[in-house]
Amino acid sequence: MPQYTPPLRDMHFVLHELLDATTALKQLPRYADFDAETLNQILEEAGKFAKEVIFPLNQSGDAEGCTRHADGSVSTPKGFKEAYRQFCEAGWPALACEPDYGGQGLPELVRSVQYEMLNSANQSWTMYPGLTHGAYAALVAHGTPEQKQTYLPKLISGEWTGTMCLTEPHCGTDLGILRTKAEPLADGSYAITGTKIFISSGEHDLAENIVHLVLARLPDAPAGTKGISLFIVPKFLPRADGTLGERNGVVCGAIEHKMGIHGNATCVMNFDRARGWMVGEPNKGLNAMFVMMNGARLGVGMQSLGLAEVAYQNSLAYAKERHQMRSLSGPKAKDKPADPIIVHPDVRRMLLTQKAYTEAARAFCYWVALMIDQEHHHPDENVRKDCADLVALLTPVVKAFITDNTFESTNLGLQVFGGHGFIKEWGMEQYVRDARINMIYEGTNTIQSLDLIGRKVLSDGGARLMKFGKLVQAFIAENNGREDMKEFIEPLMDLGNKVTQLTGEIGAKAMKNPEEIGAAAVPYLRVVGHLVYAWLWARMARIALDKPSDGFYQAKLATARFYFAKLLPETAMLIRQARAGSAPLMALDAALF
Amino acid sequence: MPQYTPPLRDMHFVLHELLDATTALKQLPRYADFDAETLNQILEEAGKFAKEVIFPLNQSGDAEGCTRHADGSVSTPKGFKEAYRQFCEAGWPALACEPDYGGQGLPELVRSVQYEMLNSANQSWTMYPGLTHGAYAALVAHGTPEQKQTYLPKLISGEWTGTMCLTEPHCGTDLGILRTKAEPLADGSYAITGTKIFISSGEHDLAENIVHLVLARLPDAPAGTKGISLFIVPKFLPRADGTLGERNGVVCGAIEHKMGIHGNATCVMNFDRARGWMVGEPNKGLNAMFVMMNGARLGVGMQSLGLAEVAYQNSLAYAKERHQMRSLSGPKAKDKPADPIIVHPDVRRMLLTQKAYTEAARAFCYWVALMIDQEHHHPDENVRKDCADLVALLTPVVKAFITDNTFESTNLGLQVFGGHGFIKEWGMEQYVRDARINMIYEGTNTIQSLDLIGRKVLSDGGARLMKFGKLVQAFIAENNGREDMKEFIEPLMDLGNKVTQLTGEIGAKAMKNPEEIGAAAVPYLRVVGHLVYAWLWARMARIALDKPSDGFYQAKLATARFYFAKLLPETAMLIRQARAGSAPLMALDAALF
Repeated sequence: MPQYTPPLRDMHFVLHELLDATTALKQLPRYADFDAETLNQILEEAGKFAKEVIFPLNQSGDAEGCTRHADGSVSTPKGFKEAYRQFCEAGWPALACEPDYGGQGLPELVRSVQYEMLNSANQSWTMYPGLTHGAYAALVAHGTPEQKQTYLPKLISGEWTGTMCLTEPHCGTDLGILRTKAEPLADGSYAITGTKIFISSGEHDLAENIVHLVLARLPDAPAGTKGISLFIVPKFLPRADGTLGERNGVVCGAIEHKMGIHGNATCVMNFDRARGWMVGEPNKGLNAMFVMMNGARLGVGMQSLGLAEVAYQNSLAYAKERHQMRSLSGPKAKDKPADPIIVHPDVRRMLLTQKAYTEAARAFCYWVALMIDQEHHHPDENVRKDCADLVALLTPVVKAFITDNTFESTNLGLQVFGGHGFIKEWGMEQYVRDARINMIYEGTNTIQSLDLIGRKVLSDGGARLMKFGKLVQAFIAENNGREDMKEFIEPLMDLGNKVTQLTGEIGAKAMKNPEEIGAAAVPYLRVVGHLVYAWLWARMARIALDKPSDGFYQAKLATARFYFAKLLPETAMLIRQARAGSAPLMALDAALF
Repeated sequence: MPQYTPPLRDMHFVLHELLDATTALKQLPRYADFDAETLNQILEEAGKFAKEVIFPLNQSGDAEGCTRHADGSVSTPKGFKEAYRQFCEAGWPALACEPDYGGQGLPELVRSVQYEMLNSANQSWTMYPGLTHGAYAALVAHGTPEQKQTYLPKLISGEWTGTMCLTEPHCGTDLGILRTKAEPLADGSYAITGTKIFISSGEHDLAENIVHLVLARLPDAPAGTKGISLFIVPKFLPRADGTLGERNGVVCGAIEHKMGIHGNATCVMNFDRARGWMVGEPNKGLNAMFVMMNGARLGVGMQSLGLAEVAYQNSLAYAKERHQMRSLSGPKAKDKPADPIIVHPDVRRMLLTQKAYTEAARAFCYWVALMIDQEHHHPDENVRKDCADLVALLTPVVKAFITDNTFESTNLGLQVFGGHGFIKEWGMEQYVRDARINMIYEGTNTIQSLDLIGRKVLSDGGARLMKFGKLVQAFIAENNGREDMKEFIEPLMDLGNKVTQLTGEIGAKAMKNPEEIGAAAVPYLRVVGHLVYAWLWARMARIALDKPSDGFYQAKLATARFYFAKLLPETAMLIRQARAGSAPLMALDAALF
């Protein structure tokens, strides 16, 4: 049976030592009184909930899955409903929500750290409140005052949950061709008709009502993405007094049988003249949905951070307990018939890869979450703009780089277990299966890479990228005199220069041939991801260098060195791949494949 | 529902154009009359069986899995038994077996090509006859005349199946510490007692008897790997007249619930004073088992070749059918609302990666299989020795390089399907799950890499590696004047030089610190794998260059160029990783991880 311990020490390191987060938050008037002690207390409680309440449901939820009944209702695995009740009773859904509607008004950063733990404990379960928070965010940003009054308090209390209804059978990536229709009704509402697929948490038994946010087309809408509007379609129509009225015309037609995340109901949702209300402006639904989508993309990165952490914890424990073969440099556990496998260099490679990727991902996610708070609440408009630009730039990197790395990490965790890794009871193979979806949903990792290079980097001539580059340069300048930082600063500077050069090259080639963007996008995103990680690991190493006698910091320093020696060299491959351009991809006629 | 078509055209290309296999086989007196037409006919029939009989059972077998009953018996999924009956009736198990015992005496190469197709169609099912052939090979090499007479005809006809019983709960990689006991009995047989786990095909309903080959210790055996003997332990004891006698004391105690290969029963086998007969010499069981193990390692490579092929076929079909987004260089399917996704550069990257890895793996596997025939039957002792050395050198590369690449390929195949790839009915996620075990069993890929660098390369001062190097050099010399081959010859030569240099460096470092071997092994194996693939792709490109007007060869040339442009650059990363050495891995105290 797998185990999980909330990594509070490592979280404190990132929050307090790397980011100095409460100092940063105190500069936002809204969080002037928010202190480190409060933060730590919340995280300790959140960790307890994750570990004690939902982690024990992870394997059983995977084995049982969800069940759809003949009437279209869906049961979640045993224990999910009770755990959700406890989650709501403790007030967790309200954590980072607006006080005006019943929220606790805490920073997004706090919710993000909590989500790491929830996802380590049980990604499938966490998707129910996770999507609810996404629907909450979209309505906060784009709902009418009346919509906010009707829906936000219920989403914040967790009494109602939310979904995102985008994908249709013939379109996922290409939302421009979606067909679901919205016909205006006399009372200002709309009749929504169509089929949506892959709707996570689309139907279930955790909450009394489900609020679907649905993309659909008005009758006179222009073709393509500029003809899509967003609608609220509740499962039960709320009455004016807040109680539930009639059942709406939206039903779950089927649930999918999937590789992983079995505990989350992935539904086909049929809308048959379901009553809906428009959110935001006509034909601008995609903009409104993107509030939810961007949050969801960061959330997917957090899901993979959570899985990487729990997989690492378990493979580390196994590597210390399992005795097999002797160390190449002579027996270490002389009283045992074999040494613990953690003595073997390649087992250490697998563990350190997991550790280096997981801890960098944590630093990356928390930093971006902190910037979201700053983007929303910093008194200085310039800071808000800078943070917004960096969040926009880095969102696809969080999503794609972390989910790809976590798929590798969970697989390495499985591999450490040898044959036992392939057996369900050890729990490792579930982490691989659950991690696999994160590379696909909320925009495939290819789409993320196109978003980065096309929309976030080349579209503004590299201005957003330069904002990140300045942070890297400032850190380099700050440490230029330190002999002990040379091993980190030199490769960081080198990679920074290479990213600048590569970006220019791709931009120049793309002017002549737009296929060059598509050809370079995936390796380019990973190069940028490594620049972020190299910068973060160099920063973490500097903190560690100043505390040489403490084991925790020795581990940080050793992991930083491992990252620079063994993982950063991937950039040598990636840059060659990006430079090789589009010709080797496009030369072959499709019929000849 | 997935589809599968035996890739006969590509098989013919490798067999006849790349390897000129029947010419090579005709030099072996045993196969003097074996011609291309016969080979092609056998493959066509074998392909029909794979496609029509066992491919339709692949998804249903995964969904149903195996069932163990209270009496210890195990049922395989619906249809498996009937398919196995047809397989035996058609004489397929006898294909490459000794005519003296009822075999057809055909080349190992033919069986290998057939196994690719069987594994494309249904890896779980194919493991039943696959392990049987392994048991057959071990008994041919090490059995007494009486053992051969008793067991070989039944294994060749398929009436009985075979297993390998190595792993125990406390040891997999480290067989030196295994505990199963073998006590001598008065009649020359042994009483075998112990527990074996992860026994593929350990118990099932396909055949009337199961022949277990079991590693165990004699009472006076020395500790470690030099105290292990090999025993035949049949489920039912054969009577002198060949009929089945009493039930032996070996029972299936449980079957494992696994990530994949659900259709194969992975058993815990309990031996309780089961009667067994020694195979080969006392305390030399591991040598005898290694005949089976080496065959099994090549077989695992073939399993992954098969999965890579079928995953590629399905993702290619989907990429042509699925319409989503417009090409970056303007609409291609103007009559449709979107273009087929094969127009997109990154979709092509995913398809071409699969294609390049699969076709190189096919060339690699068939070449090694041909060398096995030459090793066994060539009249010239020097040729036999050269082939034996090359097979020994390349066995761990076939196993680890192909299975790692196939895990990547099947995952890319899944990714091409987007969200649909995660859904069971499309079949892609099963290929990923089934492919995952191939990186673990028959020696993890780490063990393969240690075998390569330690036992196969450094142990003879690089002599075996040099034999392969000479083949590469000869090809380079042969093509040095050809301008049109320059794009392949130059990087091939460069990589050859780098492998020579890297090998020397690792050898020198290992003299001072044995951990350096463990630290370099995994990236080193992949570098060697790329040298093999670069050589094979350069050879295939040369064939294609001479037939420029035919689409099949255009595709070969384009795939070769893709391989050199986009996949070979991995060596830039791998060489850096190998050179980074053991310090970054070994620095951290285990307690501080």
